[in-house]
This record gives sequence, structure tokens and C-alpha cells, in this order.
Amino acid sequence: MPKADRCIGIGVIGLGTVGGGVVKLINSHRESYVSGYGIHLEVVRGCALVPEAADACGLPRERFTDNWRELISDQAVDIVVELIGGEHPALEIHEAAIAAGKHIVTANKALLGVHVEHLGTLAAKAGVQIKCEAAAAGGIPVVNALEHALVANRILTIAGILNGTTNYILSRMEREGADYADVLADAQRLGFAEADPTADVGGFDAASKTAILASIGFHTRVTAADVFVEGIERISAEDIAVASELGYAIKLLGIARASEHGVEARVHPAMIPADHQLAAVSGPMNAVYIVGDAVGETMFYGAGAGSFPTASAVVGDILALAEPMSRGEEPLAEIEPYDRVLPILSMHELTNRFYLRLLVEDRAGALAATSEVLARRAISISSIRQLDGDGTGGACTVVLLTHEAREADVAAALDELAQLSCVREVANVIRIEDVDAWTQGTDLA
Amino acid sequence: MPKADRCIGIGVIGLGTVGGGVVKLINSHRESYVSGYGIHLEVVRGCALVPEAADACGLPRERFTDNWRELISDQAVDIVVELIGGEHPALEIHEAAIAAGKHIVTANKALLGVHVEHLGTLAAKAGVQIKCEAAAAGGIPVVNALEHALVANRILTIAGILNGTTNYILSRMEREGADYADVLADAQRLGFAEADPTADVGGFDAASKTAILASIGFHTRVTAADVFVEGIERISAEDIAVASELGYAIKLLGIARASEHGVEARVHPAMIPADHQLAAVSGPMNAVYIVGDAVGETMFYGAGAGSFPTASAVVGDILALAEPMSRGEEPLAEIEPYDRVLPILSMHELTNRFYLRLLVEDRAGALAATSEVLARRAISISSIRQLDGDGTGGACTVVLLTHEAREADVAAALDELAQLSCVREVANVIRIEDVDAWTQGTDLA
Repeated sequence: MPKADRCIGIGVIGLGTVGGGVVKLINSHRESYVSGYGIHLEVVRGCALVPEAADACGLPRERFTDNWRELISDQAVDIVVELIGGEHPALEIHEAAIAAGKHIVTANKALLGVHVEHLGTLAAKAGVQIKCEAAAAGGIPVVNALEHALVANRILTIAGILNGTTNYILSRMEREGADYADVLADAQRLGFAEADPTADVGGFDAASKTAILASIGFHTRVTAADVFVEGIERISAEDIAVASELGYAIKLLGIARASEHGVEARVHPAMIPADHQLAAVSGPMNAVYIVGDAVGETMFYGAGAGSFPTASAVVGDILALAEPMSRGEEPLAEIEPYDRVLPILSMHELTNRFYLRLLVEDRAGALAATSEVLARRAISISSIRQLDGDGTGGACTVVLLTHEAREADVAAALDELAQLSCVREVANVIRIEDVDAWTQGTDLA
Repeated sequence: MPKADRCIGIGVIGLGTVGGGVVKLINSHRESYVSGYGIHLEVVRGCALVPEAADACGLPRERFTDNWRELISDQAVDIVVELIGGEHPALEIHEAAIAAGKHIVTANKALLGVHVEHLGTLAAKAGVQIKCEAAAAGGIPVVNALEHALVANRILTIAGILNGTTNYILSRMEREGADYADVLADAQRLGFAEADPTADVGGFDAASKTAILASIGFHTRVTAADVFVEGIERISAEDIAVASELGYAIKLLGIARASEHGVEARVHPAMIPADHQLAAVSGPMNAVYIVGDAVGETMFYGAGAGSFPTASAVVGDILALAEPMSRGEEPLAEIEPYDRVLPILSMHELTNRFYLRLLVEDRAGALAATSEVLARRAISISSIRQLDGDGTGGACTVVLLTHEAREADVAAALDELAQLSCVREVANVIRIEDVDAWTQGTDLA
């Protein structure tokens, strides 16, 4: 049995779902960390707004403080664990911890999605580390894969189901043929969606995570603001049914790809082949599909949220820092990985195949007028299908699939379609993802 | 850009599919390892039986030797990469490299499946490391996950599709309704199966990998000889079709579970629910499903073999060692993880549900006689289904599904069934895996 030379003091700021899980996980596994790894962890301080938060996770009251500055300056705290989320005061907490020369472990995607460059620079100067496995895809060790296990590769594509709420909603819509609003309401009732679900269903949470993973995977700075975002609010039961008939599943994906031209980073609902690995990921689970030029396709699957799954990632980061520290050595400084500055490609320049669902007048000439608008923009149609209607002048639903087309051309065509007298509504537009393109560049020889 | 303080010399023993891929990967990515990680790798020596192997991967002839002792003793070699496979002379190579104080990276599952304790002890005494990410599941970074990213967890279950050949065969049998022998012959023709396929189809390759993953995941010594092994040779198109109708897929799984009672480790064809993540893994791909008590279910998917996928894992290990070395520091010694000595549970003591396919006389009384044998052993039947026959005394196929039963009881019952005059053949027995049991113990609170 290896000897724990010294105890590593942990200070946890934020004792909610994740922070409470971290305290409980360390307390219940303390002995096995000593016997298995020679690492003795102790939560010496915990900070929250109210002391009842400490009681709830079994942290003794004398270790509780409601003042995070006091926690950071406590000499017994070797590692500061920030689990309050959001930009403020998390930013100030990180700055203070770095100034105090303390390593940080965090799950704060909103903070890192915006401020990682600033904080990374400060940390590098101070010789401390910010570890963030839990900030993207919760318990799934995907940051570790990108920073360590897959470093022999040039990473080409990262495509993830990064938000459990939206995957839960889409999975239930698919299984039950139910409508978005009904499933969302039920998800809120069951605790799978927040009272204000905007960050999730609007794609913003996934955008922060996509930015973090793209930055790490491609060695270049991508912030949440660089990521194109579209949510799932307009996905209907009809879209999912038609997609299914066409052999596709609809998933909210965070997609980042790197080439010599630059980086594309986008979050939007995407149609992917129903037999793709990502299509099998259902309910609130997350998965991240990563393509490296040597390893080819990989996928990492697991829980993207929840108390103990997220605590697994946080405590994994703590143990990685504590391993050298408990032998009296400093952790190896993370190498500043942002050695490249790749341009962020504009969404307008990208190409995709598209699914368009239109509500049109059910009369002769309507399809011709619609097709003509697309043809004028050089958008080629691969199939047209009228879902209902009987040619007597009411409204009917038409689904058009396009061949590959430029985003900008499609956007312009959609504006024009909306103006046509025969088009009542452009009901939805969904990208049909070219998953074969994800593995382009893996043909090393 | 970080500075590479010194070049790390790599000596590669074995320049075949994987070794050649390692040389080519390092050569093509040398600059990006310097710019991205400050690590300068150079393959300074390569060893194979014939110098043409060096030519094929672009290694200059002056760096070639056919004498591995010469490579190991070369002062320019910092890390010895052993990629010849098999027990001998790989064992002697490892011993010599350790004696020379050199770190080792290997993909040799056959060696580690048997000799890991001996080699681990030698390496620990000498202060060198043996890294083996490529030895289990090829390019999938699952050793890294168990050794690093998931260390906050107690690992409960490891269940993997660890052999690409057998998964390719089973996938094609399922898709095409084809017979085992035909698909195997075609797989051999296409290079997906060896001329002598025994190690793959018999489950022995998967058993070595299961032993390695169980040892690392459970911190206890499991050797290949501890693993119960049954291959896929008896799986028929009929078994797969019936399983599919019942909502199951048949996969060759390496399953290891740990509890307070001990470790179970087994490789055999298993029926799993068709909607389980592992069931979606098709063709030659591998996947490892890992359950930790905090993180819950995770799965890691990717290529389990092939030149560059395996090289990705080997070079990942090389970079992990080279990172501190190139700054003039020694890699942190791996902590001897075998802090527990758990008993290996006998297969006879385990319980499972079973699928039995019998060829019986198509006459009154045959089913009664069969059922009676099972009942006498307290093996309860959940369903019986006659697949063909017309009651006129020819042979017919009967499929029985049992409730949970002890392996020993089922083995005894099968012996007895084979003796019954009405039973022409016990055609196949397949375990129906209780996948819900895999996640037992994740309810931390």
C-alpha cells in the first residue's frame, strides 16, 4: 500500500447538487483513495450561502463559511473547487484563487466558455492549473481524452450530444410521437428541464461546451460567442416522424471541425443516419464523438449531469492534482495548448444539405414557384414530398430535401420563400449532417 | 510555443502493421508534437527480422537492427516500444529493457495477460513504467480512463466488445442471416480474420484483454487463465434470428465484475437487449462499457485494431512518458495499483438466465421429459417455443429460456438432457446477460 505523505486540503465553493456530491464522494471513498493511490483528500472548508447546505452533505459546521475569500485564503486549502456556476462571482473567485497560488477545479462551462483565455493566462503566469473535466459532458472523461489519451492525433471533428435536457425531450418526442411543448412541460414537471429552459433548449449550454471542447481539441481559442447556435424549439413531432421515415434521427449536436481553412463551431438540430452511434444515445445521456486523424472514429458516452456523475469528473481532476502534491511534488504545469490561432469560419460560408418543411397553398403552381426560388439560388432539390392536402386550395405541408447548398444561399432563399403568396409558412429548416465528412482526413499512410 | 528541452529517443521493436504505423505517425506528426506540447520525439532505432520492414515505414537503414539487445542497450533510446506480440521473446525484451532502466510502451496483450505481475514488480523496483493503452481495445483510450479519468470511482463492471474479428462475423451474420462458417471464410478472404482464427473466434484474445482491464479497474490481479472462455463457433444464423425476435442482440463480450465477494471474469457470447448501447456497436469496431459507482454508465467506442488506431494509443503512451522527460523530469512512477487481492469467483457459482436450443424428437412427451430434467435442478423455464416440426416424429427445434439459474445446475442439466432419448442434440446454450445487474451499486447517497 503506497503511503500518503501528506493530506491534501480541498475547499469547495458551492455546496449544491454537484458540490454536495463532491463532499459526499470524497468522504465515502477517502479510504480507497489512500489504499489505492496513496492520496489522502480532506474537504477542509466548504462555502455556500447558507450553513444548511453544509449539513445536507455532511460537512461539519465548523468547516463552513459563507465567505469565499476566507476559504481561498485558508492555509489548509490546497485546491479550490469552484462549483457555483455562472460568470460572477465565479470570475472573481478564480482570480483570487490564482492570486493565492492555488490550483482550481471547476465545472463552470459558462465562465470558461467566455473567460478561458484570460484565466488561462493568469494561471500560467502563477504556475497553477485550472482543471475542467466536468465543464463539458459532465461525467464523461472527454477533456482527459483530448488533453491526454488522444494527443498523438490531429483532432478533426468533435460532435457531441452535450445537453441532457434537449436529448431527453427529443428522445421522448421520437418515442411517443409527442409535441415539443407537451414534452417540455412534462420534463419540467419531472425535473429534467429548468423552469426557464432557455439555456438548454436554445442551445446556449451546448454552445459553451462546444467552445471548450473545440479550444482543447484544436489548440485554438474558441469562445461561446464564436459558436453558431440554434435551439430545438421549432422541432415538431411531424419533423421527427418524417426524418424517421427517411432513415434519420434528429439530435441537437454541438459540432466543431478543424481544417487548414479554420474552425467551424455550431450547435443546431441535425439529422443524422438512424444507425449512427450518436443516434443510439437516448434520454438524458450525453455522448461525444471525436475523430482523430490516426485513431479514426471514437465515441465517449455517459451521464452529462447529475450529482455523482459530475462529482466523478471533479474528484478525478482533484486526484490528478493531488497525486504529485501528496508526494511533495508540484503537478506538471499544463502546457499552454493554444499554439494555433485558427480563423473561425462564418456559418454563411459553410455548406450543408437541408430539410425544409413548408406550409403552402394546396394548388397547382405552388410547388413550381417554390422550386423556382431555390433553383435561382442554385439550390438543387433531391426530393419533394407532399404530406397532406387534396389539391383543393387549402394548406398542405411540403417537405423538400436539398443537395449540398451554401448556408447563405439557403438563408436568402428562405427569406424569398416566405414572401411568396403561395407559401403560408416556412415551418422548419433542419440541417442534414454529412457524417461522412466528419471522418475526412483519417486516411494517413 | 513551448520549448522542447531535449529530444526523446524511441526504439521500436517490431516494424509490422502496428510498429510501422508508430514510425509513420511519429514522423508525420513530429512538428505538431513540438509546437503543441513541446515534445520532440525521434525514432532513433527500429528492430525487425528483415531490413525491408524499415524501408516500408520510412525508417532509414542506418537506424535498423535485427538485434533487439542492441536496440535496448543503445544510449540514444529512452523509451523501448515492444510491438512484436506473443510471450517470447517479448518477455525477455521487457526484462532487458527494465534492467537497462528504460520505460516500456507495449500493445502485447498475450504477454501482459500472463506476466503482468512479474513484470510490474520488476518495473516498480527499477523505477520504470510499462504503459499498455494499446493492449486492450486498440485505439480506444480505456486504460487511460481506468487509470486516470475514472479514479474517483469504485469500478463495478467492465463489459466490452474487445475483439473486432468476432464482432465483424456476428454483425454480418445478423445483417445477412448468413451462417457462421460462410461468414468466417469470407472474413478470412477479406483480411478481417486470420488463417488460424482460433485466438479470435475462441475468445482467447478477448480473455487476455478482459484480464488486463479487470486488473487495472479492480486493483487486483486477474490473469488470462482466471477468465472463463467460450467462443462464438456454435452461434448459428437461427440463434441470431430467434434472439432478434426476442429483442436481443448476440455479442461476444468480455465481462468483469467486482463485488465484496470477489471478481467474476468471463468471455462468452451473450444476449443483450437490442437497444443497449453495446448492441449498436457493429462491424469490426470495439467498445468498452464501464460502470463506476459515482459516474454510473459510461461507454468508450472506437477501432480496436488496425495500424494507425493502435499507433494512436502507442504514441499517446509515448507522449505521456515523454512530457516530463523532455523537461528533464522523470515520469511520475505509476502507483502499484494492486492493493487488493480479491478472490476470483468460480463460473460454477454464478447465476444467469439461459437460452437453450435443443433438437428433439417431434412427438408427445418430448417437452415434458425435457422440462422435467430442468425442474429437477430447480431451473425454472420462462418460455418454450417450438420453431418447426409437425408432431409426426421427425426432429424439431425447441428454444427454452430459463429464469435465473446457477451455472453448475445448468451444466449438470445439459449433461442429462443430452442423455434423453427424445433429445437428439443440445445445439446451443447462450447466456442472457442481466444488464441491469451491471449498474447495481451506483446508488450512492
